[in-house]
Amino acid sequence: MGKKKVMVSAEEVDLATVKYQYETIEAPHLTGIGLKLFVKVLEAPLIGSLIISQLKKKNKMIEMLRNTVIPEAPMFKPEFPPRGIWSFDFSRLLLYSNAEPETGVVPLDEDKRPEERVELAVKILPNYEPAKSLSTDPSPFRYWKIRDFAYAYRSKITTPSIVAERFIAAMDHFNNMKPPTPLLISYDPELVRKQAASSTRRFEEGSPVSILDGIFMAIKDDIDCFPHPSKGGSTFFHEVRPVEEDAASVGRLRSCGVILVGKANMHELGLGTTGNNPNHGEDMPTCNEIVALVHRTARNPHAPERYTGGSSSGPAAIVASGLCSAALGTDGGGSVRIPSSLCGVVGLKSTYGRTDMSGSICDSGTVEIIGPITSNVEDAILVYAAILGSSTAERIALKPSLPCVPDLTSNELSHGYGSLTLGKYTEWFNDVFSTEISDKCDDVLNRLVENHGCKMVEIVIPELLEMRTAHIVSIGSESACGLNPDYEDGFVHLPFKKAKFTLDTRTNLALFQSFSASDYVAAQCLRRRLMYYHMEVFREVDVIVTPTTGMTAPVIPPAALSLGETNLQVAGNLMRFVVTANLLGFPAISVPVSNLTILIFYPNTMAD
Amino acid sequence: MGKKKVMVSAEEVDLATVKYQYETIEAPHLTGIGLKLFVKVLEAPLIGSLIISQLKKKNKMIEMLRNTVIPEAPMFKPEFPPRGIWSFDFSRLLLYSNAEPETGVVPLDEDKRPEERVELAVKILPNYEPAKSLSTDPSPFRYWKIRDFAYAYRSKITTPSIVAERFIAAMDHFNNMKPPTPLLISYDPELVRKQAASSTRRFEEGSPVSILDGIFMAIKDDIDCFPHPSKGGSTFFHEVRPVEEDAASVGRLRSCGVILVGKANMHELGLGTTGNNPNHGEDMPTCNEIVALVHRTARNPHAPERYTGGSSSGPAAIVASGLCSAALGTDGGGSVRIPSSLCGVVGLKSTYGRTDMSGSICDSGTVEIIGPITSNVEDAILVYAAILGSSTAERIALKPSLPCVPDLTSNELSHGYGSLTLGKYTEWFNDVFSTEISDKCDDVLNRLVENHGCKMVEIVIPELLEMRTAHIVSIGSESACGLNPDYEDGFVHLPFKKAKFTLDTRTNLALFQSFSASDYVAAQCLRRRLMYYHMEVFREVDVIVTPTTGMTAPVIPPAALSLGETNLQVAGNLMRFVVTANLLGFPAISVPVSNLTILIFYPNTMAD
Repeated sequence: MGKKKVMVSAEEVDLATVKYQYETIEAPHLTGIGLKLFVKVLEAPLIGSLIISQLKKKNKMIEMLRNTVIPEAPMFKPEFPPRGIWSFDFSRLLLYSNAEPETGVVPLDEDKRPEERVELAVKILPNYEPAKSLSTDPSPFRYWKIRDFAYAYRSKITTPSIVAERFIAAMDHFNNMKPPTPLLISYDPELVRKQAASSTRRFEEGSPVSILDGIFMAIKDDIDCFPHPSKGGSTFFHEVRPVEEDAASVGRLRSCGVILVGKANMHELGLGTTGNNPNHGEDMPTCNEIVALVHRTARNPHAPERYTGGSSSGPAAIVASGLCSAALGTDGGGSVRIPSSLCGVVGLKSTYGRTDMSGSICDSGTVEIIGPITSNVEDAILVYAAILGSSTAERIALKPSLPCVPDLTSNELSHGYGSLTLGKYTEWFNDVFSTEISDKCDDVLNRLVENHGCKMVEIVIPELLEMRTAHIVSIGSESACGLNPDYEDGFVHLPFKKAKFTLDTRTNLALFQSFSASDYVAAQCLRRRLMYYHMEVFREVDVIVTPTTGMTAPVIPPAALSLGETNLQVAGNLMRFVVTANLLGFPAISVPVSNLTILIFYPNTMAD
Repeated sequence: MGKKKVMVSAEEVDLATVKYQYETIEAPHLTGIGLKLFVKVLEAPLIGSLIISQLKKKNKMIEMLRNTVIPEAPMFKPEFPPRGIWSFDFSRLLLYSNAEPETGVVPLDEDKRPEERVELAVKILPNYEPAKSLSTDPSPFRYWKIRDFAYAYRSKITTPSIVAERFIAAMDHFNNMKPPTPLLISYDPELVRKQAASSTRRFEEGSPVSILDGIFMAIKDDIDCFPHPSKGGSTFFHEVRPVEEDAASVGRLRSCGVILVGKANMHELGLGTTGNNPNHGEDMPTCNEIVALVHRTARNPHAPERYTGGSSSGPAAIVASGLCSAALGTDGGGSVRIPSSLCGVVGLKSTYGRTDMSGSICDSGTVEIIGPITSNVEDAILVYAAILGSSTAERIALKPSLPCVPDLTSNELSHGYGSLTLGKYTEWFNDVFSTEISDKCDDVLNRLVENHGCKMVEIVIPELLEMRTAHIVSIGSESACGLNPDYEDGFVHLPFKKAKFTLDTRTNLALFQSFSASDYVAAQCLRRRLMYYHMEVFREVDVIVTPTTGMTAPVIPPAALSLGETNLQVAGNLMRFVVTANLLGFPAISVPVSNLTILIFYPNTMAD
């Protein structure tokens, strides 16, 4: 009867018969001249679309999206049913009132000033003991927490201006390293000095504006931080999209007294997971007298021959290097969590819609959020408390519940912590490039169960391959929509303009542009199915635990430095676990565990 | 600089400089063998997509969707800001509480039983005077209202069983007419007799279940009405999608005591505006012993050589013929209002999401609703009161405000009516095929102003051409997503199966399948712009008035009866005004005015 397949409705799927499906990505691994030729062929009128079509067929995309009857209606943005009432009946109102209020969390008012939210968040952190935490001894290397800086500033151990000079000296050092390890791609030491001087003055006057006053932070290159340009890691995007003010999230940090050091590099336009970025050029002065550093692939501070992961490569590198307490990244497919994982720091993907994307290059998708990268969980909470707050448009669209953060003061902690039920899908959990990863993550989970009283439950989530397809179609189509006018423009009249995109971006765009409108709608139908499966899991468990990435930091092939690289097998290993939270909008935190990480999803109604 | 265009944000558009843009649709008008050849070429591998591409280019679709930078984020489903706070600032919560409650409306609880809602709705209708309203004299022809039947049943002037026999005799008469004028395509007189007998018994026992008890209604062929098959006007859809129970809306009518007479014909799968449907066959017995009548293009009861309009052709025809008090249609691009207009009856397009689409063929789009077709406004309110109620999924997604209907009891009526401000965009209003239409509509508006104290305000709405493009891309892509598996299946393995779609449907699918995923996302960005413009208009006016259609009922070309017809110029004239309410989700009512109609939009927060 032909190719037509009919899915039963998600509610009718028998979990007992679900088999975990291993991903087999069929696509060439290319760098250098091979990649260049491949892109030329992909962009050729007929043969290009034939190749793309074959690749999609081999990877079952056409079967899933075009030949399958999916009984669910599309879900275009994550929609969270109120906790405990995920059923299609008409007694909703009754069940609503039966839903128990969540315990162990503290709400943070979106309409309060960021400084007020941050002060509230400090109060629910564990008790701070400077003697235990703060160390001015540089050996062995350890990260200073935000509260360490706050204490040091308030007790006059140091000042933001002193830290600024150390920062500037370190930046010089990194920029002159061999191989070059540039941490920022737009940076002006004078702007850093000015902000630090203002902050120092506030401390001298005894009036710091918040716990974040004088804290050093970097901003990913796709989030506006005036007067720096936003290139999105490209060579030209600042020309078509000039920056006139801070992004909403950056403005909130600035009002908390944060010292914004500059723009951190990224995978071009966020369209990749390694952080590879072959865009480069000579050092040159730019408008606003900001030094535009050469664009070069960010390198992993723990091993400079390896990738940082991406797309928030620079933000993770600068936090992992210890030069900034935190950085803002964007995450549409793991772009905060993957580099955090590969660099051994903490990455928080907030609930979809919780952060205002205004003033970022990817401001209109259904999967992206802005999230903090920090050296520890406490700091992630503090930065998140500052930046959270939906846009007016999203408030109208999503009508989100009140954001809240977990109460970590000692009593509440032991209470909430030990009562957690962890959900683990063992076959998925173990589907990693090296079992070292799953083994180490398992060790941590076992400690949580044995020493802290957590409960572990085996779960099953059907259709994870379909989930990845739905994710790539969603993020790809939404990216293509934003990039098409520049791409098409260059294609017809300015062949050189087109070449301004990296080869990797052009490979991705060739795929993204091949998706049909009905593919996009079908992907949204899959999104509703996946939401159903996850909500069923969240009836039984509080969080889902997985490794963050299926592999550790890959080595950078030398040819990839100048021309880039496409390696969908690596992308598959890096993205295997993270895309769930993007497609379904759940918050997720990636925490380092012996340089490996655990990813946790919370449903929306729990602490973000 | 190539083809790239950059739109300023909707908020920055200067209305004083906006010029009304006349639509010039470039597409061939084809029937018969010409259409057949055209479809063959369209479906050929290379030449087909070239032709489609040229047609899209000529109609500026590629320019709008692919080469234009649209600054707004996509709006995938209609999102209504609370009345009075349409501005992007952060004081929303304050403004919320300042919003004045609407006057002159009565809320109808979604969680009540339909019978209870209908009884509440009766109470807010103008006082009923049987002597004035009810007439048993058949000459001159006039429609009985629902309350006329209700009074006649209760005062024993007639019974549902007597009416049923008259109905069955009339159906025989229509089925034997030359040209054949079949009003129903699935119909079983015994089922009608049974339901009528039950209703008659309830009246004898003095316990009718609601004002709708014993009221005769037809259901469009794309809404499930057990045990009838749902073919959606096609020849085969009931085979791939068997009917097992009533659609949600039909079940609500049944519980009110409505007599469901059968399935009314439609433009195949709703993909057309004339009601043309060349599917036909001999009379044949089907499963469930229901007589499957031949499929033939429904004819306008006022002029059988003319179209009814579509896609709810049969529902409008059976109501206009006086055989049913009401019918249910679906409306994704005017499909309730266009045939209502062309047949001189009332059509109500409810707010997006207010009606539960479960059990209809097009159950998952972002533009479709189920709405009543009736002979008068009162009856539309009564039927709407019975069927309203969002699905659980839409309640979670849209969190809709309480549905309400206008209070038409005499005092409230004169109060609410005279205080209305009507918005008219004169150039749009006058953009009709014959000025007779705009002149007659003008006459009515003048009477509203002069005799009833309404205020008239000139308005401007930018980008109406873009709106039509956004609409066709949205509804087309969503339709294609649902139809692709069957289409593709037939295409490759069963060439005959593909031919089961009409030529008109295949032309549409060729266009719809050509839309890319990024086109779809761009269309949603346009949707947000258009929502902004309309919400700005609704700051000044209560309703927007336009003709419903830009032309009266077109003559059916003889060749179109056997092979169908594609005529996008006619479609343009029929759809010029109606698609606004679909793309933006507003409620709209089409009311006959000397056989012409006026279309009214309310924003969501007013009475639906």
